[in-house]
Amino acid sequence: MNKISVCLSPALIHLHDIRNGIVVIIDIFRASTSMCYGLANGAEGIIPVAEVSTCAIYKDHGYLLAAERNGEVVDGFDFGNSPFSYVREKVNGKTIVLTTTNGTKAIHLSREAKQVVIGSFLNITALCTWLQQQEDDVILVCAGWKDNFNLEDTVFAGAVIHRLKSSHHKEDDAAIAAENLYLSASENLNHFLAQSAHSNRLKHLGIQQDIDFCLQIDTIETIPVLQNDRLIALKN
Amino acid sequence: MNKISVCLSPALIHLHDIRNGIVVIIDIFRASTSMCYGLANGAEGIIPVAEVSTCAIYKDHGYLLAAERNGEVVDGFDFGNSPFSYVREKVNGKTIVLTTTNGTKAIHLSREAKQVVIGSFLNITALCTWLQQQEDDVILVCAGWKDNFNLEDTVFAGAVIHRLKSSHHKEDDAAIAAENLYLSASENLNHFLAQSAHSNRLKHLGIQQDIDFCLQIDTIETIPVLQNDRLIALKN
Repeated sequence: MNKISVCLSPALIHLHDIRNGIVVIIDIFRASTSMCYGLANGAEGIIPVAEVSTCAIYKDHGYLLAAERNGEVVDGFDFGNSPFSYVREKVNGKTIVLTTTNGTKAIHLSREAKQVVIGSFLNITALCTWLQQQEDDVILVCAGWKDNFNLEDTVFAGAVIHRLKSSHHKEDDAAIAAENLYLSASENLNHFLAQSAHSNRLKHLGIQQDIDFCLQIDTIETIPVLQNDRLIALKN
Repeated sequence: MNKISVCLSPALIHLHDIRNGIVVIIDIFRASTSMCYGLANGAEGIIPVAEVSTCAIYKDHGYLLAAERNGEVVDGFDFGNSPFSYVREKVNGKTIVLTTTNGTKAIHLSREAKQVVIGSFLNITALCTWLQQQEDDVILVCAGWKDNFNLEDTVFAGAVIHRLKSSHHKEDDAAIAAENLYLSASENLNHFLAQSAHSNRLKHLGIQQDIDFCLQIDTIETIPVLQNDRLIALKN
């Protein structure tokens, strides 16, 4: 039986043996959701970059530039990480260069993994079905908030663990806790996550509709996978 | 209302503003339990040191030397961190020099706090009553296992949060998750924690009785507090 473990913060990633497993990057509010949605809507690729200044270098070369810091679009950029910016009319056929507060950092820290894919509630069943077909250990990396633990990423990790319970053994206490948390939350995910610090941060920014969007389950089947410098849609 | 937050791993302590709050060190299996029990049984003080080599320096100066690594007593030392070594007959009137895999490290990292106290299920009500009497924020520091998240320390943090809900506002998502985990676990703590990685580690070492001991609730009222280089019993 393969193993599944949870990295609760990018600051703890050195504790995980990512070289021998598949890393799933989780940044529910909102980077990983928008990445999945953008590729499902025909974006050719998403290039995650760590710094706003790196993102700016791609200007005038035909890319869509997306930069978010502290929940808001950085001045001078096309958009940030709201999923409503990743609709077909905007992203179809385009390559997006993206930097976010937490999600793109988590991707960069996971580059040594055997494979890096992106998870969200939008593609959870497609993701879990694919993970079950692989013969690999899985490390669920929660992007968190500035290295802090967060509720929504951990609950999502728990949802994946619960779906993989017949194929993957819970390797660490974080996996046990995440599944437990998901089972508490699953009856009313929206209500449960309304407690979270980041939901409240987003509410203050007036983007409740983004939260609701990010909690939709199984609306798409696209799985973003990291190939060289960019995320592309995995060909099953 | 004062705030309460949870540091899920010593590796995340830099994210917390410990200078302006009371830190509670939590290392349920077994260091924090044994510290509470030892001071309740008349030990004059417990000097936590980070390294085995530092502990050894105190030899032949009238101290009891305790050193644990990876769950076992280090060769050549009087004892490790089993609570059964901290009974009155052994520790009354003595000062103990102690180094453990996780707990003493967490204490050292918390030295800058306004106050550092030690929590365990043995003294939980006395601890919470005292915390409610203070006008300070509380940071619950889980010692974990080699910087990994662990179940038993987090469940204990959740138990404290639940008891302080009328006096302390949950400051971070980790506090919300810990309370939720405790509420799931509270009906049968022993059964819930039997899943944990460290319980299994201790079972392999044949010390199930230590686990049972550490899950006793309210057997003592002593609260260890760090004063200069040592833990002593707090005078209420």
